Amino acid sequence: MKIGFIGLGSLGTPIAINLQESGHMLFVYNRTKSKTQPLTSKGAIACESIAALAKECKIVFSIVSDDAALKSISEGNDGLINNLEKGSIHISMSTILPQTAKNISELHTQQQQHYISAPVFGRPEMAMARKLNFVYSGDQAIRSEIEPLLQNAGASGVWDFGNDVMAANTVKLCGNFLIASMLESIGESVNLAKKSNVDPQKMWDMLTQTLFNVPLYKNYSNIVIQQKFTPPAFTAKLGLKDMKLVLEQASIVNNSMPLAELLRNNMQKLVDSGKAELDWSAVSMSQ
Amino acid sequence: MKIGFIGLGSLGTPIAINLQESGHMLFVYNRTKSKTQPLTSKGAIACESIAALAKECKIVFSIVSDDAALKSISEGNDGLINNLEKGSIHISMSTILPQTAKNISELHTQQQQHYISAPVFGRPEMAMARKLNFVYSGDQAIRSEIEPLLQNAGASGVWDFGNDVMAANTVKLCGNFLIASMLESIGESVNLAKKSNVDPQKMWDMLTQTLFNVPLYKNYSNIVIQQKFTPPAFTAKLGLKDMKLVLEQASIVNNSMPLAELLRNNMQKLVDSGKAELDWSAVSMSQ
Repeated sequence: MKIGFIGLGSLGTPIAINLQESGHMLFVYNRTKSKTQPLTSKGAIACESIAALAKECKIVFSIVSDDAALKSISEGNDGLINNLEKGSIHISMSTILPQTAKNISELHTQQQQHYISAPVFGRPEMAMARKLNFVYSGDQAIRSEIEPLLQNAGASGVWDFGNDVMAANTVKLCGNFLIASMLESIGESVNLAKKSNVDPQKMWDMLTQTLFNVPLYKNYSNIVIQQKFTPPAFTAKLGLKDMKLVLEQASIVNNSMPLAELLRNNMQKLVDSGKAELDWSAVSMSQ
Repeated sequence: MKIGFIGLGSLGTPIAINLQESGHMLFVYNRTKSKTQPLTSKGAIACESIAALAKECKIVFSIVSDDAALKSISEGNDGLINNLEKGSIHISMSTILPQTAKNISELHTQQQQHYISAPVFGRPEMAMARKLNFVYSGDQAIRSEIEPLLQNAGASGVWDFGNDVMAANTVKLCGNFLIASMLESIGESVNLAKKSNVDPQKMWDMLTQTLFNVPLYKNYSNIVIQQKFTPPAFTAKLGLKDMKLVLEQASIVNNSMPLAELLRNNMQKLVDSGKAELDWSAVSMSQ
């Protein structure tokens, strides 16, 4: 199948490679053109513009850094909406505000195109190991059609959240909020243990064999204890962006989220102190 | 072996029963005498005073509600320290400030007695299923001696934190802080999902099969979604007490813990609103 792919960042690239290795013909676009090389070296076509890509493909995956970037690749003369054929499907994996998904979905619908929200949980190495989890929502017939493509993209799990195109984005924001909460709690506990003359590694060896016996806690407690914040799997800058999205969504639906506010403030401090490109678990250093 | 047991609360009682069922002869004491009945009905001796208990046993377990209660059973004319024989061992399972453990340990040492910190992770039903986790610290020779007794008490895991009698208490405070952090994050995420028209149960079914695939998150997300805050496994009142201890320890060692402050404030709101006896996961209602 001819598949378009926009956004070859640290997570986009291994996902695109998974699609390619599943036998699809890829047409790729990225603002920084050099990033297309890992794909073109294996036979993908690098497109000069989104319009050129849209003319080749009826299915386009996108994974870009924020709401503005998604709007920019979707709208305007050179965007997907003005250039995709009728019946085409835009599978949008970016972490964005639910309302943005709804707006772009409606613009696609006006052109008789389809939009599916399919944000993804997993770090780059999990993409390579095909252990991603996609949460997805949108029109039912289209959801069924694209589900096998999510498998091709590297899913170990696909989680259907129904017709509301906003639903999957809400779940993704909740997930990232929960991970950020975990990072803050790990950071404060590691610092308390250290200052109380308790070996934090010994403490976390116990905790991750008992209460928190799950890879997420194991990986991040190790990173925090060893202060291995580079190379980042997910930057503080992106973490700050996501906490802002969580609070924006909370504001839209009138939900009080004092913990999300605290996380946003601490991520902001980290970014302001020049550490925007460290892994977001470096938030433990902001205390 | 003749074993003394002080503190037959919701967790103390099943632990005492475990010791009894492991073949030990129990001498029990509780402020509210009626609570000794489940033990005496199976052959334990209810003691009229701590002094009377201390005269019978060279090993005494205690699990009481706070630092003041531990001081009260340990110090004074009728306390353990004035009444235990030389060489006796006090195994203290209460969640207390590390410094309190150190103070009481030193008083025992002055009488040539021994004190081991052995706080415990697990809800009452986990005690009944012998799935508790004890973290323990104190003098090495005594630690080795009492380890089999922790197994008898219902341990599925015993975690040795060395000679410093304060270490195990620090670890226990960190653990309860981490659980409280999790409760706050679950609560805020459930409320955000609901208000965004996402089924929180469906969302948490996904999360507990992926990122947070661990019983602690499964149990508590269910409790929060179903708002089953009674009967409590651990009350808001005790949660507030523990967050105060965490902050007291943080203050002693000069550790900034903004998340612990937030948790303390939210637990305080819950208690102030007349919900002190609900399960501490009801903190999700304080928003």
